[in-house]
Parts: sequence; structure tokens; C-alpha cells
Amino acid sequence: MEDLFITTLIGQVRALDQFGTWANKDDKEILCEKYVKTKEDLKQIPVIADIDEMQVQDIRLIFQSIALAFEKKTGVMCSVVMEMSHEGFGRAVVIAEKIVVTNKFFKDAHRYSFRTYEDLLKEGEKMLDNAIEIYNQFKK
Amino acid sequence: MEDLFITTLIGQVRALDQFGTWANKDDKEILCEKYVKTKEDLKQIPVIADIDEMQVQDIRLIFQSIALAFEKKTGVMCSVVMEMSHEGFGRAVVIAEKIVVTNKFFKDAHRYSFRTYEDLLKEGEKMLDNAIEIYNQFKK
Repeated sequence: MEDLFITTLIGQVRALDQFGTWANKDDKEILCEKYVKTKEDLKQIPVIADIDEMQVQDIRLIFQSIALAFEKKTGVMCSVVMEMSHEGFGRAVVIAEKIVVTNKFFKDAHRYSFRTYEDLLKEGEKMLDNAIEIYNQFKK
Repeated sequence: MEDLFITTLIGQVRALDQFGTWANKDDKEILCEKYVKTKEDLKQIPVIADIDEMQVQDIRLIFQSIALAFEKKTGVMCSVVMEMSHEGFGRAVVIAEKIVVTNKFFKDAHRYSFRTYEDLLKEGEKMLDNAIEIYNQFKK
């Protein structure tokens, strides 16, 4: 169960791979390509440009994976509401019943990424653990 | 306090009236123009067209007014997260602390409206009352 977040995320990414783009790559390679950006990579991203639809979709997948992994672990249905402006300001919430189990604000969603693969894994599991903790604290 | 929702809503609408379009109209007239549609009016709205940005904004104002009125009544900070597809499918949630106090799904946001002014008033107050009830039920 330790890697529940990351296995859910790769499942989501592969499920959306309509054209077989990722078929020949391994899981870690795909997730790195999508979510890992070094400081050097970040410098290449223009600040002023409108945020890319693909980037918004990739961010959504992170929170959808939190929701799905939460469901797998607790059996409680979960959903994601996300809003994002063209400038990369936004917010994503994961909701279980009446409880907001994950809450993330974006000020610069263009650059939403992780420095290393291990960071992605660790951050994801941490968000998932937090979500479950919050749910247990507030549930009736 | 009985009309807290409607006074908040008209305050929001007037605050966004940058060009004085509404300046010479009274509150009820403005709210009717924005939110009251008869069955006949609804028949005139094309189903296939993309949803209008103005309509999305008007819907957001309803939920922002719930949030603001909730704050006025309880002193608890509130926020809105709303997502809406071009086809008029979407969801709006009002969140107080970790609790989803209002939750609304849209399947046909093009047509989101009220049949009479009294319906708008009544529905708004009902959503507000529900929000407070849910908050009191879940708060720690």
C-alpha cells in the first residue's frame, strides 16, 4: 500500500494515453517527463504565457489520483473540484462527503512540478496521508 | 437578517457594475433581468451553444453571495470553488474551513435561473440556512 498514490497516478496517465504515446516507456520515465522539472527546466518556462491545457490536465491528474487512492484506502467516494485562471492562479480541492480532505492553491501553476521523482512520490503519499487524517478528524 | 442572501447578491452585482449599466435600475429589476427566466424564456436558449462567460459569472455571484452571507452570519471565512465546462456541466462548492457547506452540480448551466423573483429569494435563503446547518453539524 506504500506506493498507492504513485500506482494510481500512473494508472490514470496510462488510461488517458489514447494514442499509445507512452506505451513503450516505463512508469518512472513517464512520470518524470510529466512531473519532474529541475530548477534549470523551470527557468525555461515563460511566466507571462497563458497556461497550457495539458499542464492543467496533468495537475488535475495528481488530485484525481489522491481522490482515487483515498477511495481505495477508505472506501469513501471522493471527488475533485478545480478552477484555474489563464494566468495560472487557481485552486484544487478533493472532497470526501462534506469534508475537504485536500486543499491546494496555485499562484504559478505553469511551474507546478517536483524537483525529483522521489519528491513526487513523497509529496503524493504525504497529501494522501493528510487527506485520510483530516477525514477521520471531521467525519461523523 | 431575513433577506441577507438577496441584499448580499445585489451588493455583489452592483459592485461589478463598472460601466453604470445598472445604476438607474432598482434592485429587484436587476436581479430579475439576471436571474429570473420564465419557461418561455428558457425555450429560447439554445442547448448546443457554448455557455456564455457572463452566465458563468452570474452563477458564480450566487455562490459568492452564499459565501459572503455565511461569513456575515457566522463570522467564519468562506470561499467558492467552481468549475464549468463549455457544455454547461459543472460544479460549485462553498467551503468554510474544511467543510463543504454548499454543493451544487450543473448539468445545464445555460439555463440556471429561477422562475420568479420569490423563488430566487427563497432558494437563496434556503441554501444559506442549509450551509449554516451543515457547518454546525461538522465543525470541530
